[in-house]
Amino acid sequence: MREVAIIGIGQTKVEENWEKSLREIAGDAALAALMDSGLAKTDAVYVGNMMSGSANHQQHLGAYIADWIGMRYAEAVHFEAACSSGAAAFRAAVMAVASGELESVLAVGVEKMTDSPGSEITAELATAADADWEAGQGLSFVALNALIMRRYMHEYGWKKEDFAPFAVNAHSNAMHNPFARFHEPTTVEEYMKASMVADPINLMDASAIGDGAAACVVIPLENIQKVAHRPVIIVAASTAATDTIAIDHRKEPLWLKAANKSGKEAYSQAGITPAEIDFFELHDAFSIMAVLSLEANGFAEKGKGPRLAHDGEILLNGKIPIATRGGLKARGHPVGATGMYQIVEAVQQLRGEAGGSQVINATYGMTQNIGGSGSNIITHIFQRK
Amino acid sequence: MREVAIIGIGQTKVEENWEKSLREIAGDAALAALMDSGLAKTDAVYVGNMMSGSANHQQHLGAYIADWIGMRYAEAVHFEAACSSGAAAFRAAVMAVASGELESVLAVGVEKMTDSPGSEITAELATAADADWEAGQGLSFVALNALIMRRYMHEYGWKKEDFAPFAVNAHSNAMHNPFARFHEPTTVEEYMKASMVADPINLMDASAIGDGAAACVVIPLENIQKVAHRPVIIVAASTAATDTIAIDHRKEPLWLKAANKSGKEAYSQAGITPAEIDFFELHDAFSIMAVLSLEANGFAEKGKGPRLAHDGEILLNGKIPIATRGGLKARGHPVGATGMYQIVEAVQQLRGEAGGSQVINATYGMTQNIGGSGSNIITHIFQRK
Repeated sequence: MREVAIIGIGQTKVEENWEKSLREIAGDAALAALMDSGLAKTDAVYVGNMMSGSANHQQHLGAYIADWIGMRYAEAVHFEAACSSGAAAFRAAVMAVASGELESVLAVGVEKMTDSPGSEITAELATAADADWEAGQGLSFVALNALIMRRYMHEYGWKKEDFAPFAVNAHSNAMHNPFARFHEPTTVEEYMKASMVADPINLMDASAIGDGAAACVVIPLENIQKVAHRPVIIVAASTAATDTIAIDHRKEPLWLKAANKSGKEAYSQAGITPAEIDFFELHDAFSIMAVLSLEANGFAEKGKGPRLAHDGEILLNGKIPIATRGGLKARGHPVGATGMYQIVEAVQQLRGEAGGSQVINATYGMTQNIGGSGSNIITHIFQRK
Repeated sequence: MREVAIIGIGQTKVEENWEKSLREIAGDAALAALMDSGLAKTDAVYVGNMMSGSANHQQHLGAYIADWIGMRYAEAVHFEAACSSGAAAFRAAVMAVASGELESVLAVGVEKMTDSPGSEITAELATAADADWEAGQGLSFVALNALIMRRYMHEYGWKKEDFAPFAVNAHSNAMHNPFARFHEPTTVEEYMKASMVADPINLMDASAIGDGAAACVVIPLENIQKVAHRPVIIVAASTAATDTIAIDHRKEPLWLKAANKSGKEAYSQAGITPAEIDFFELHDAFSIMAVLSLEANGFAEKGKGPRLAHDGEILLNGKIPIATRGGLKARGHPVGATGMYQIVEAVQQLRGEAGGSQVINATYGMTQNIGGSGSNIITHIFQRK
């Protein structure tokens, strides 16, 4: 297997973007990544997206986007793994280049959610859950997470305010990210006063949907001299694992077993321990998911995730900085694009291009994209060479 | 790159299957392929599907199916490339195994279309076309193909009856395939009397949708001694290419340029010429597509495709047998599964398991799956070792 490097990144601001179509948003990120890479085109375009078939009446995003960005005749395909669609496209790009089959791949994550009524988007998000055993019973995606959070609070004795530091950290970091949806800080007081969505999840526990796209260009490391004009960022590990799609089929609903498996395999592939990870772009779709991710990946013991936040260890200068560019909470969560945003942000950190939310001297960064309620996990570790 | 072999296949009958859910149909094909392979599980499950998000209110088919077939915790993801979704999943499986990242992949194509009203399915199929420039103007997918067929007849002087041999051949071969939707022969007279769908495409030019799933297990050839209990079938070539998604953006709407590119690359990868291909499972979603595929892949000159059929060269004992198990026309076209059915059928032929529609002494078989109106092409060549 050939080693794989990222040589270009691009992204659009997460927002309600009524001025641009799906392909324009995807194209803006894709062309920015190509420009950044120095390549005019790549052998293939891999697109991560969850819901364009229903939300935008457009499937077939591979050919759709390849054509739009002037890469007609390139190989192109669309990957869907609910909220982990972005990382799924990236992982496939890594394997295609590692295999020797392709010399370069442009991976794009995109989602355009604000053209549809909120009720439709809520129904479409619920297609990430089990249609028969969850969505069909009337459970929305936020309701599923509310059940998990309530159980977690009951099981381990945490109170609502113990989750506030996740929102405070995310919003604080997003202020330095021009591509983030929100640029306003928040406080514990504001967190506690936020409107309830599905008790105990309030607006400040929940990530904001939005329109956005992010993109990366990958090539074999052995070709890096020919093109790179930036610090070289290696894909040190790429792993994936699934769990049951319905939460009630799990023995331990508060333990992200697939995340644990994928994380362990990633550490082993990269040959490092969690202590060597300098920052962690985790999947904070809801603050409870941030907690469970920290625990599953070896940064906190079971039931102790909120302690890490309380002690300031998730801040930029803490033991394990998270959501360094705002995370899903404050950068925003255009679902099929999110995994790619995480990767783009990790590259920014490792290149030293993260401005006011830079993690100092970062060598290893980890991203973990979660589809469904912990049912699809894709983990990457990146290394600055 | 490691060479890749297919060691297991499975499929369900294409039909209106109201008794089984999406996951049951996919599971039946997947478990049959595993059983055939002798493996209890694989490292990953790759699922090809086009429209489950809208037609079945279920996305996230990777985790959904992995869980259902007892492969919880395996890697799993869903691929979409309109009608070429099945082959897209298979190609990714080949690359994942070739790269050395995975030791085995189960690739499954599935579509469940008959639970939804026909008008909805027609709208969902149109999401394979361009939402802004085609579907948004009221063009259904069959209407697009009707425009192409009408233009072809005008340009090259063929008459309606010249397309009859494609339906006659497909139905004749399907009679020997227990998994085919139709088991009735047809004639030129019946073809000419069939109801018009979108002039000049009538019911006998158009493939039938349906519910169905097909699956394959791939492993590295180097591991074949450990498991294989069947003739060894190698993936001799795997290529993909795209074209514009909207047909009117092409200089030559009657020339499948991406198919030509993908086909040429496949011949070169396999180190053979079209003359060495013993049968061709092409994408006869409409009879005009069969014609254009034969021309784009070097089996007939431009404008001469119907001649090949007229001369009997597409029959089982002809120069280039097509639709040997019924093709999309008579086996049926559950869109996201079709590409996988083609591959399963090619393996049957190369193993000598095609019964009454066996191509004698076949060494090389080619499959070509088309997404949209020639906008996504995935070609494979298989070889009996």
